[in-house]
Amino acid sequence: MTTPGLGLPMAVPAEGLPARVRVHEVGARDGLQNEKEVVPTEVKAEFVRRLAAAGLTTVEATSFVHPKWVPQLADAEELFPLVRDLRSPSGQAVHLPVLVPNERGLDRALALGATRVAVFASATESFAKANLNRTVDEALAMFEPVVARARAAGVHVRGYLSMCFGDPWEGPVPVDRVVRVCRALLDMGCDELSLGDTIGVATPGHVGALLTALAGEGVPVSALGVHFHDTYGQALANTLAALRHGVTTVDASAGGLGGCPYAKSATGNLATEDLVWMLTGLGIDTGIDLGLLTATSGWMAGHLGRPSPSRTVRALSHKE
Amino acid sequence: MTTPGLGLPMAVPAEGLPARVRVHEVGARDGLQNEKEVVPTEVKAEFVRRLAAAGLTTVEATSFVHPKWVPQLADAEELFPLVRDLRSPSGQAVHLPVLVPNERGLDRALALGATRVAVFASATESFAKANLNRTVDEALAMFEPVVARARAAGVHVRGYLSMCFGDPWEGPVPVDRVVRVCRALLDMGCDELSLGDTIGVATPGHVGALLTALAGEGVPVSALGVHFHDTYGQALANTLAALRHGVTTVDASAGGLGGCPYAKSATGNLATEDLVWMLTGLGIDTGIDLGLLTATSGWMAGHLGRPSPSRTVRALSHKE
Repeated sequence: MTTPGLGLPMAVPAEGLPARVRVHEVGARDGLQNEKEVVPTEVKAEFVRRLAAAGLTTVEATSFVHPKWVPQLADAEELFPLVRDLRSPSGQAVHLPVLVPNERGLDRALALGATRVAVFASATESFAKANLNRTVDEALAMFEPVVARARAAGVHVRGYLSMCFGDPWEGPVPVDRVVRVCRALLDMGCDELSLGDTIGVATPGHVGALLTALAGEGVPVSALGVHFHDTYGQALANTLAALRHGVTTVDASAGGLGGCPYAKSATGNLATEDLVWMLTGLGIDTGIDLGLLTATSGWMAGHLGRPSPSRTVRALSHKE
Repeated sequence: MTTPGLGLPMAVPAEGLPARVRVHEVGARDGLQNEKEVVPTEVKAEFVRRLAAAGLTTVEATSFVHPKWVPQLADAEELFPLVRDLRSPSGQAVHLPVLVPNERGLDRALALGATRVAVFASATESFAKANLNRTVDEALAMFEPVVARARAAGVHVRGYLSMCFGDPWEGPVPVDRVVRVCRALLDMGCDELSLGDTIGVATPGHVGALLTALAGEGVPVSALGVHFHDTYGQALANTLAALRHGVTTVDASAGGLGGCPYAKSATGNLATEDLVWMLTGLGIDTGIDLGLLTATSGWMAGHLGRPSPSRTVRALSHKE
């Protein structure tokens, strides 16, 4: 275990923040999906196991998209059974959501016993076209039967929403357009949304404005997660703003793995370690052991053959 | 000029933040001082000129410490006259503070016409010993005549305070110890303090607790600047917390240059570009042109022979 003064910050709570945050770990899926060199299935399984052992209770495992789209995750059928029955150090079942792009993907996930799935929509027409080759509304129509059938099977559904703040083709994204797509995803039955800053341009006031607008539309903050990218170094400041608005679900990627394929220079996802450093310092409970998590990211960085972009991983690794 | 959607975030203000922030640029001094390869004086002068042309109104220029301590800044006598009379794009005199460790350093600075100087104290005994070979109180006693003589000469004095949150030898630093040294620096006549997180371990609640304690002791927030390091990726979130407590002076280093010599793995200073991205997104006026600033950091990175650690510099450079 890591201890304060030796790899952990002193805990000094701030007013108006939640007592507990659930980290939705995306490293094994979002983090790895753009890696060109295919990672062996057993390494991926060990990555997921180690993340669970570090105390992460939600570990996005893989994606049931067509193997041609994401060759890195073509082993979803082999991987998922290896990790399906994972338990946390406290004995609870670990949530292992998987991405499903359509009904075929849902069928594959259900056949393997998945209990949590995620669909991925876009707030902008340009990205919907680039990522799904559909309009925003066509994509929503495609997800409708997926969500309905998942819910009928008792499966929890997360809706990812990309480009909630800015879009590489369209520039700044109006808040009301994002609210409209959020409303549509919730109305079709999504249990939870993840608000994505896919190109990392958001700043704290913009985050607050979107969360205020969603609250004004009656969306409960408990149904919202945030998914920030650190392209411009803003992810943690944006997370702090989201926590002040009551958000308690934060997406992050162990070691800062991953990025957006449409923004090659992107530093990528918020690193789970940088997030856990801040939350620990704020006295916010996550249940995560930063030492075990950092060791896991160091181990994975070794497999990928390059250092982690997480500042906390680098600082703590240097200390050893 | 950079424009929203093309290298700038959309401006969405948040409540309770200042309308304007003064960035205290430390790249030319704090950023360069640990570079082993000596940068030519004319390159340093051009760096300072470019920073001023990008709209930075306070550019820390150099240090009048003994040349043996910081060989990189041994050319202070040559450099300072090259930049002393710089004006901002709007025609105002640019503030060019210089570090002075003792009366001898002050003499050198005054002889060259410096109008702003800075002394550097430590909140912890371990760092005072390592950096100044004195106890905390011995260091304060050494600065007392420096500050008194500078003030008598009509010179503005900044007091740097290192290790305000954590110390590599002592661990977390108690808030009341920091308050005591702040009080001593102000009582001896410092016009302004810079609260340094030298090893980057601070988190937003800790920042708020220190600022609240200082306010409780009657220290006006207008006399306080913050100086965060990004070692654990926390600098910008900590800055946001400081802004919420009324701080309007933020130290940063163009391109994220520099770091603490006692924490080799340190990513170093908060990058001015990452800070300006957040402030611009919050609609907070800085007077800084992010495009010109990023170009300057890219130019300096070329001279130093390695890429900037600033995420904003990397993202914007990739776009060109």
